[in-house]
Amino acid sequence: MNELTYAVIGTGAIGGYYGAKLAHAGHNVHFLLHSDYEHVRQHGLKVSSCDGDFELQNVQAYADTHAMPQADVVLVGLKSTNQHLLRSLLPPLLKDDTVVVLIQNGIGLEADVQSWFPHLRLAAGLAFICSAKTAPGHVRHQCYGSINIGNYSCPDKERINAILADFIDSGIDAHEVEYAEARWKKAVWNMPFNGMTVALHTQTDRLLSCPSTRQLIYEQMMEVIHAANALGIEGLDESFAQKMMEMTDVMVPYSPSMRLDFDFRRPMEIDYIYTRPIDEARRVGAEMPRLQMLERELRFLENSGQRD
Amino acid sequence: MNELTYAVIGTGAIGGYYGAKLAHAGHNVHFLLHSDYEHVRQHGLKVSSCDGDFELQNVQAYADTHAMPQADVVLVGLKSTNQHLLRSLLPPLLKDDTVVVLIQNGIGLEADVQSWFPHLRLAAGLAFICSAKTAPGHVRHQCYGSINIGNYSCPDKERINAILADFIDSGIDAHEVEYAEARWKKAVWNMPFNGMTVALHTQTDRLLSCPSTRQLIYEQMMEVIHAANALGIEGLDESFAQKMMEMTDVMVPYSPSMRLDFDFRRPMEIDYIYTRPIDEARRVGAEMPRLQMLERELRFLENSGQRD
Repeated sequence: MNELTYAVIGTGAIGGYYGAKLAHAGHNVHFLLHSDYEHVRQHGLKVSSCDGDFELQNVQAYADTHAMPQADVVLVGLKSTNQHLLRSLLPPLLKDDTVVVLIQNGIGLEADVQSWFPHLRLAAGLAFICSAKTAPGHVRHQCYGSINIGNYSCPDKERINAILADFIDSGIDAHEVEYAEARWKKAVWNMPFNGMTVALHTQTDRLLSCPSTRQLIYEQMMEVIHAANALGIEGLDESFAQKMMEMTDVMVPYSPSMRLDFDFRRPMEIDYIYTRPIDEARRVGAEMPRLQMLERELRFLENSGQRD
Repeated sequence: MNELTYAVIGTGAIGGYYGAKLAHAGHNVHFLLHSDYEHVRQHGLKVSSCDGDFELQNVQAYADTHAMPQADVVLVGLKSTNQHLLRSLLPPLLKDDTVVVLIQNGIGLEADVQSWFPHLRLAAGLAFICSAKTAPGHVRHQCYGSINIGNYSCPDKERINAILADFIDSGIDAHEVEYAEARWKKAVWNMPFNGMTVALHTQTDRLLSCPSTRQLIYEQMMEVIHAANALGIEGLDESFAQKMMEMTDVMVPYSPSMRLDFDFRRPMEIDYIYTRPIDEARRVGAEMPRLQMLERELRFLENSGQRD
């Protein structure tokens, strides 16, 4: 089998990390950059990682997808607030059998991209990682780092296996998972913690150490689980919520990406992390009143600026 | 009929205003004071009011209810966070036929006091007023000022009428209302706005001008109305929620008492404004998920100090 060609759209905390790991292991990776383009072209990419630091020189960096070669695999690490950009960014990269992996948070991401590109082969990438872009061309990887791939619309199972093999070969803990179950399982953690750390200006540990918000987080997790069950998705029950609580108990105090976005006055990913799952659940009769209230609070905070 | 003797417990924004109005009209009013006792004894009470300023000299001021005469009517303007103090404050003031009027916000206030004093004659006072104590012995009355009296456990209807007559005679817009309906109608406004202005650190006008929080406030009002209906209380429906929205639209931007308590680091009245009505509704099968979430957020903010 020929070696796969990779394109990374959104070379930040997520796309930058996984793309750099693949390139560092010798894979053929082309990076789309925006504000960091000049810096990375001259100085390369730097990854400070709990698994060992490394640097990439002579990065295949681009400022425009029209200048990039077509790819076998496109890894999308874009913030979902910029999802609409994929309509113009993707076409130059696509061959008939290109697989696009959306390494993003939320529900409904693949459905939207599929509606724009009906024949595209799509997969979800569920990243379990604490990382941040701390300077131009510099990704800081604090802990974790595994990725789960869920096949959304790729008929070629072998291609999914080849991507997984490349990730594993590059030192990344990667597994295949069932698409819908995986997206909703991630939502069980993401929906409570992303918004609540913004709404109460706090971190995961303090939400769990206060009995009132600990109970609220659990109730919100159960809203996601009931919604997933109503949508016919199996594999999620009360024990999964308990597992997520316990996992978060032993994590270091953590500010999820939405809290960082809010603090740095970047747009928050409210549409795909809240509005879409709430709408999808409502279509099958499952209400999520606490998470809908959280969505409304986040809209207020986003519309009316900072908390003052 | 003999002239009624009044005692005021909690001479602040509410008790201070109504007590001073009665005294200014010539009624016999005795005031319990705490931190302002010395000031009021020497300088009297001052009311700066949208209806005209006035001052009371030679106020009948006390630092201890044991020094006060027994009263025909006790007006309680205490913060409900200090409700337990009534167990020791009230007995020296009580005759067999004393009526105690709780001019406080929340649900369950009368039931608790009744459980401590099974034979006491109780009424609720629902104050519609914007006022604040801005300095020792100084109440600033910005607008509104009416009071509704709901009879809870006073068999002597004439006594309630006599109290209403004294209020009206003192220039106060006062009406008799049905107890349970009145308490729950007030909760329709209090439960959304008190907590939401704390949780989002804002005022009534901004909550209503953002479409997301406007919808949330309406949903929270409907939770209160459904709870009241489940408890068998009539007179509340969707049109009442709409009326409360429209009334608040034309109010000046307003910080409810809980927002002021939070900002000045005083305890918030979470128990009687949130926990009690939520518990009472649950007992008849009515859940209030959004208001319960708000209660949990408020407990977090109270437990963990200020917002950051």
